[in-house]
Amino acid sequence: MKKLVSALLLVAAGLSGTSAMAQFAKPEDAVKYRQSALFVMQQNFGRVAAMAQGKAPFDAKVAADSAAVAEYMSKLPWAGFVAGSDKAGNTKAKAEIWSEQAKFNAAADKMQTEMSKFSAAAKTGSLDNIKAALGGVGGTCKSCHDDFRAQ
Amino acid sequence: MKKLVSALLLVAAGLSGTSAMAQFAKPEDAVKYRQSALFVMQQNFGRVAAMAQGKAPFDAKVAADSAAVAEYMSKLPWAGFVAGSDKAGNTKAKAEIWSEQAKFNAAADKMQTEMSKFSAAAKTGSLDNIKAALGGVGGTCKSCHDDFRAQ
Repeated sequence: MKKLVSALLLVAAGLSGTSAMAQFAKPEDAVKYRQSALFVMQQNFGRVAAMAQGKAPFDAKVAADSAAVAEYMSKLPWAGFVAGSDKAGNTKAKAEIWSEQAKFNAAADKMQTEMSKFSAAAKTGSLDNIKAALGGVGGTCKSCHDDFRAQ
Repeated sequence: MKKLVSALLLVAAGLSGTSAMAQFAKPEDAVKYRQSALFVMQQNFGRVAAMAQGKAPFDAKVAADSAAVAEYMSKLPWAGFVAGSDKAGNTKAKAEIWSEQAKFNAAADKMQTEMSKFSAAAKTGSLDNIKAALGGVGGTCKSCHDDFRAQ
């Protein structure tokens, strides 16, 4: 019985390993995936940030829609930070992403939380609410880039 | 009064023009935006397609989640096909996208419809349903690329 359990655990471990490996055909795709998701997020976030900073006219519907896309996109990049993709493609990812995973994951979670707050603020239609939520997102972008992205 | 209406219409036209122009800081960003959205979509769709084609083991949850992301992403690339971005960046977009807009928009709508059906099929948890919906999406990818993307 103990042998069977061990065998099952090995199979389970093997399968989940295979699954993680099979998620992208090659490490370059994983890099491109996370960069693509972050770019789509940043473009939508940046559109609303420009309104909050008075650099673009405020349009409540565009702000709410764009922030909602940014919120959705904030959940996607992390699947692309797979082991073995630290030197692939045109990445600026630091080795600390994998050597300090708990810290990186916490930073990723924090960004998603702040982006959700930002999107909720945009849904209210109030530019003041958006302005109040802007710094929270900006802070998580900066601190994660400082710690985990090469300049 | 007629003058006022005309003036207001001009302002409205001007604003919507500005808004379309202001959506991306530069044409290269519009190109990168649509390519990024399409890449994230394709990676998620491709993961499920591989299961349907027997190239990867079927995982109902991964299939449903990935197809849902592909469905969401299918709505995003179109904002990036702005006028003036037909020669920017590393684009393969053909001029027909802008000279035959009605046809292009119909192709874009068709792809989104097929991707929604595909996602609905994946939500059922049935690999047979996914297989049945696969060709519909694949057909819209191919026909739109044939007509509107340079080889």
